[in-house]
Amino acid sequence: MNELVQTELKKIFNGRFSTSESTRANYARGEDTYEPVLSQAVVFPETNEEVSKILKLCNENKIPVVPFGTGTSLEGNAVGNSNGITISLEKMNKVLSVNAEDFDCRVQANVTRKQLNEYLREDGVFFPIDPGADAAIGGMASTSASGTMAVKYGTMRTVISGLTVVLANGEIIKTGSRTKKSSAGYNLTNLFIGSEGTLGIITEVQVRLSPIPESIMSAVCYFPDLDSAVQTAQEVIQYGIPIARIEMLNKDQMEISIKYSKLENIKASPTLFFEFHGSESSNKEAIKLVEELSKNNGGGDFKWAVSLEERNKLWQARHDVYWSVKALGNNMKVYSTDVCVPISNLVECISWAEKEVKKHDLIAPMVGHVGDGNFHSIILFDPNDKEKQKKIRKYSDDLISKALELEGTITGEHGIGLQKKHYLLKEHPDNIPVMKSIKRSLDENNIMNPGKVFDLN
Amino acid sequence: MNELVQTELKKIFNGRFSTSESTRANYARGEDTYEPVLSQAVVFPETNEEVSKILKLCNENKIPVVPFGTGTSLEGNAVGNSNGITISLEKMNKVLSVNAEDFDCRVQANVTRKQLNEYLREDGVFFPIDPGADAAIGGMASTSASGTMAVKYGTMRTVISGLTVVLANGEIIKTGSRTKKSSAGYNLTNLFIGSEGTLGIITEVQVRLSPIPESIMSAVCYFPDLDSAVQTAQEVIQYGIPIARIEMLNKDQMEISIKYSKLENIKASPTLFFEFHGSESSNKEAIKLVEELSKNNGGGDFKWAVSLEERNKLWQARHDVYWSVKALGNNMKVYSTDVCVPISNLVECISWAEKEVKKHDLIAPMVGHVGDGNFHSIILFDPNDKEKQKKIRKYSDDLISKALELEGTITGEHGIGLQKKHYLLKEHPDNIPVMKSIKRSLDENNIMNPGKVFDLN
Repeated sequence: MNELVQTELKKIFNGRFSTSESTRANYARGEDTYEPVLSQAVVFPETNEEVSKILKLCNENKIPVVPFGTGTSLEGNAVGNSNGITISLEKMNKVLSVNAEDFDCRVQANVTRKQLNEYLREDGVFFPIDPGADAAIGGMASTSASGTMAVKYGTMRTVISGLTVVLANGEIIKTGSRTKKSSAGYNLTNLFIGSEGTLGIITEVQVRLSPIPESIMSAVCYFPDLDSAVQTAQEVIQYGIPIARIEMLNKDQMEISIKYSKLENIKASPTLFFEFHGSESSNKEAIKLVEELSKNNGGGDFKWAVSLEERNKLWQARHDVYWSVKALGNNMKVYSTDVCVPISNLVECISWAEKEVKKHDLIAPMVGHVGDGNFHSIILFDPNDKEKQKKIRKYSDDLISKALELEGTITGEHGIGLQKKHYLLKEHPDNIPVMKSIKRSLDENNIMNPGKVFDLN
Repeated sequence: MNELVQTELKKIFNGRFSTSESTRANYARGEDTYEPVLSQAVVFPETNEEVSKILKLCNENKIPVVPFGTGTSLEGNAVGNSNGITISLEKMNKVLSVNAEDFDCRVQANVTRKQLNEYLREDGVFFPIDPGADAAIGGMASTSASGTMAVKYGTMRTVISGLTVVLANGEIIKTGSRTKKSSAGYNLTNLFIGSEGTLGIITEVQVRLSPIPESIMSAVCYFPDLDSAVQTAQEVIQYGIPIARIEMLNKDQMEISIKYSKLENIKASPTLFFEFHGSESSNKEAIKLVEELSKNNGGGDFKWAVSLEERNKLWQARHDVYWSVKALGNNMKVYSTDVCVPISNLVECISWAEKEVKKHDLIAPMVGHVGDGNFHSIILFDPNDKEKQKKIRKYSDDLISKALELEGTITGEHGIGLQKKHYLLKEHPDNIPVMKSIKRSLDENNIMNPGKVFDLN
């Protein structure tokens, strides 16, 4: 970075601009398996205008920028750039407005999902996208995140109706609107969602909220084997039964979670976690149907989590899966696969994956947002064990091929980052030239998170 | 069009290439109020490869192309180009595949919504987007259409998971996938949806279907005045009551519809048409709540349309609104406004609109997809009465300003076409440079439906 830029940024941001090694190291990657890459500086803007100033300056001087949220991304989406600057959005963490009567609100990019739900507690509405981590809503927009409630509430694409984005040239634009629908020109909102900071920096998000359901009921159900659990999930979806969450944990993962999360009276078998949101009577109706389908597939009795506390414990255990695996060893890393297939191909894909994991002798328990056809193998590995890493790479490659053969996608919700660029070439070889054209047209100096999603040259 | 191109297209398409005046006149505009503009020829491709050949040839020779579906668009989206060729997609009308167990199917662009639902009849699933007209699914994608069922099922953006698009240079690309979600790179699917043929021609659409509900119940309810009807709709949404359709017709429109559609035992008052999709018990639960809200606002008893025949008659009357107004006079034209506002601002916007219509002495009954905050004034006018047209323009301009002031959008579902280009400048002045950059990057010779959505230069 040239000295003039550095001086200028220091002048504008003062204590909110840092070149110290410890700060740079804190923003050098997300929850991915990459070696940290330290950017030359980290800057902490507070307003759209400040982000605009940074980008204008960086664009004029061709300095790469990496936007950084809560650092919970998994595919290297936020790994630093040794020639560039990391822009931490953590000071842009305000809820800007709430319109409970329209079920919407506008937040700055780094408001996290839990922070927003805490803020909304009195309003009878909530933000329904739950990727597990307490991620920033701007970051979740950037990777097109989803999680456990997508089966009912959709993904970030579903709930976002508008954005404020700062472009490479410093222009600040406001896309979308507060209305439920619009046909007013190109859908720029959805172009920026999932673009992982390569087209612009999302600084504000307009999100649709949902009414807090009158009744919420959670249950777990054990199955004799994985296939019958997944088959049940598939049937629940195919029968169109209204359900808010339907999560699978395989036997290995259940064993790990029971220990890590100190779950009591829970069996280490392939398991489905269910949650129903609705009126009490509609929930009861749905539950009856789901219980029947479970029984037909050999599932046991439903174990209910009735109180809010029990329910939270259950879902916390589900959300702690990543950490529960990581805790299995010191100095170990964790990599999560993320394929998603049409629901009718899910049983085939998951059972294929479980066999492959055994074949390669991996520690790789499985969890799945099975109502969406999306599942993860949470692979534990020693970063010094090169042989094992070869096996993991082989498993990952084969899983991608299998998913594509089953008309699936290489990533349901984690995005591309650095990790999946070569897989994106497999899934959408014909789309990439179009993506590149768009990238070039909006970021002619290739300063926006370069090297992520695809290599431009 | 130069002669070489004409000779080449004749050679390839033979009888499916026409320069006859009558054919050209048939494809010179949609259901808009523009004077017909005859393109120099009309061509009728049957395959993606044929569309590709046309575009390659036109691109090399800088000949504008206008894609044409069923011609039901309302804003001049499909008006011909006197220097160009119109590409009718009417021979691309095949259902390519149906996966009822995954609730999805793939269709060629000119399969219409009724044709698809007829095709799906035995499969227990249906295509839920219903804009009234029996429009082509490709055309509905191009304008980001929605209609009466968006309140439950969303818009074209919600239900489309992938597209085949032929680009200006003739490249054929397949966007999206069959999965319920994906984070694999830029969301090109949603970029092409709503781009009105200015970025490429949509030739195939992958759509999500919905299970046919166990129970469907329709009712009408009269109100003493428009405000109380709209207020009721607003409350139904704000209480989060599950409803599939909630349509408003004002008194003027009811009078016209009763005559045109020969509705019996129906009163000419401001009216809501409701439809509930669900299980019998969940429908009954929802109906109870809606009846209560209606009563509180002075609404009368619900009049039920129980049989399929009665229900169809009711919704046919709703769908015939456009024709019912058109039938009021010979040689008259009809223009429909299309603003959409946040639901909490709907009462204010609609009552403002009704007063303005009276003030300007317009024949302009109103209907609304009020659950989405979207409504139409269906304005009848004599194309020779220039004074009246000035008033209509004034009303339309003022309505747009009012909607924007109420944080609304200039178009809920009809798109921009030629008609709303200057309004788009009002709603999204800061977005237009980005739209133009993208347009230039994908269509360097500006051959794709030029002059629609925005003027490039």
